[in-house]
Amino acid sequence: MAGTDSTKPAVVVGLAPTVILVRPQMGENIGAAARAMKNFGLDQLRLVAPRDGWPNARASAMASRADDVLDGAVLYGDSPAAVADLHGVYATTARAREMEKPCLTPRAAVADMHRRLRQGQKVGILFGGEKAGLDNDDATLAQTLIQIPANPAFSSLNLGQAVLLVAYEWYTSGPLPAPAEAGDSLSVTLDELHFFENRLEAELTRHGFLKPPEKRPSMMRNLRNIFRRAELTGQEVRSLHGVISALIRKDLDVDD
Amino acid sequence: MAGTDSTKPAVVVGLAPTVILVRPQMGENIGAAARAMKNFGLDQLRLVAPRDGWPNARASAMASRADDVLDGAVLYGDSPAAVADLHGVYATTARAREMEKPCLTPRAAVADMHRRLRQGQKVGILFGGEKAGLDNDDATLAQTLIQIPANPAFSSLNLGQAVLLVAYEWYTSGPLPAPAEAGDSLSVTLDELHFFENRLEAELTRHGFLKPPEKRPSMMRNLRNIFRRAELTGQEVRSLHGVISALIRKDLDVDD
Repeated sequence: MAGTDSTKPAVVVGLAPTVILVRPQMGENIGAAARAMKNFGLDQLRLVAPRDGWPNARASAMASRADDVLDGAVLYGDSPAAVADLHGVYATTARAREMEKPCLTPRAAVADMHRRLRQGQKVGILFGGEKAGLDNDDATLAQTLIQIPANPAFSSLNLGQAVLLVAYEWYTSGPLPAPAEAGDSLSVTLDELHFFENRLEAELTRHGFLKPPEKRPSMMRNLRNIFRRAELTGQEVRSLHGVISALIRKDLDVDD
Repeated sequence: MAGTDSTKPAVVVGLAPTVILVRPQMGENIGAAARAMKNFGLDQLRLVAPRDGWPNARASAMASRADDVLDGAVLYGDSPAAVADLHGVYATTARAREMEKPCLTPRAAVADMHRRLRQGQKVGILFGGEKAGLDNDDATLAQTLIQIPANPAFSSLNLGQAVLLVAYEWYTSGPLPAPAEAGDSLSVTLDELHFFENRLEAELTRHGFLKPPEKRPSMMRNLRNIFRRAELTGQEVRSLHGVISALIRKDLDVDD
């Protein structure tokens, strides 16, 4: 897959969320995240462009007996690649964002993950790097934001702590979900959605809609947010492709 | 008060639990605990015999903008002194203990704290040092144990993480309790209870009950646990003193 730089064979995502660390900086924090995951029963870890490369000796030292989580980590070149096969993506955010998508507490988000997992969906949680957190493009990949409630005057949590709290909510959220009941009503994977959105963007650009150029990223973000929020099925995305195909058709068939 | 080695004036305990770190070792972890407290709206910190003395430069460096919590910390020489003025004491424990007292999750414990605080009680949470945790005597001081649910195969959390999770549960546990409605039904302070128990122990020793000597600590612990669990009022403790006084009286008044 384009953008994927995996050093491991693909991991089967089980009935639990995958943790995705986006541009993490210090190996110690990656190790602390792995420990926190193992404390609370999560073992699927993905890393997007870790600053100091991978593997990382400091991460291993910090992880101590959670090194199995690190050993299973899958490396990606960018965030879209890391979420491509997922159906439900959650983005942790330190601050409220002006995005038209739900922003849940970790507890409510975990309940929503259970709902998706029960439907056979694969879900993942994005955590930003130490310094800048997730950027708007990362957050746009998600259908749902997660904001950890904290003292507004002192809300900063480090990466390991954020993973710890969300993983703790996962672990304490009750019984594991029932086996999947998949079907065509399954929402689309992020990869399929991304393919659709890219096609839409290309067509909109070609048709002069996304102007001026400096506004293009935010205009596209707003559009993507709409599709993220809709929890589209594969059939619906195929229909939308049909809509685009129809709209861009030059040889109009007035009899149809 | 005997055993108190306070470097600060007594702090008025507000409508929130006090965090009590018992024999903490690394200053960094004391600082991390202070940060976690401030993240989640707690500011009353007590320290029992910190290994490296107090104040501690490493704690201050780690606490960064949570140094106000450290500045307000009160130092004690031992655990009984640190809980003497409290009505409700909770002891965090990494493992299940064979003690006849309730063991709650952090979430359930926080609900119980709200109940006590609504009644005007002062509550505190004991956290053990990095290496050994709380010893049995510390746990015996508490009416209630708190066990953080975690993967049984990988349950170790550091001091800062344990404080973080309990403080997070406090912060997310809903509205602050209503103002206190104190009365004589208020449960006894730990100091009053301790005075009673010491008197009981002295009398039992004098009467040859606590034998053999090597079994005395565990026998007394079991007795203390009973009184801890009972949530005695001041009136009830006075009655129990009366019971002891009556029982040890030599000049029996058969007409009474």
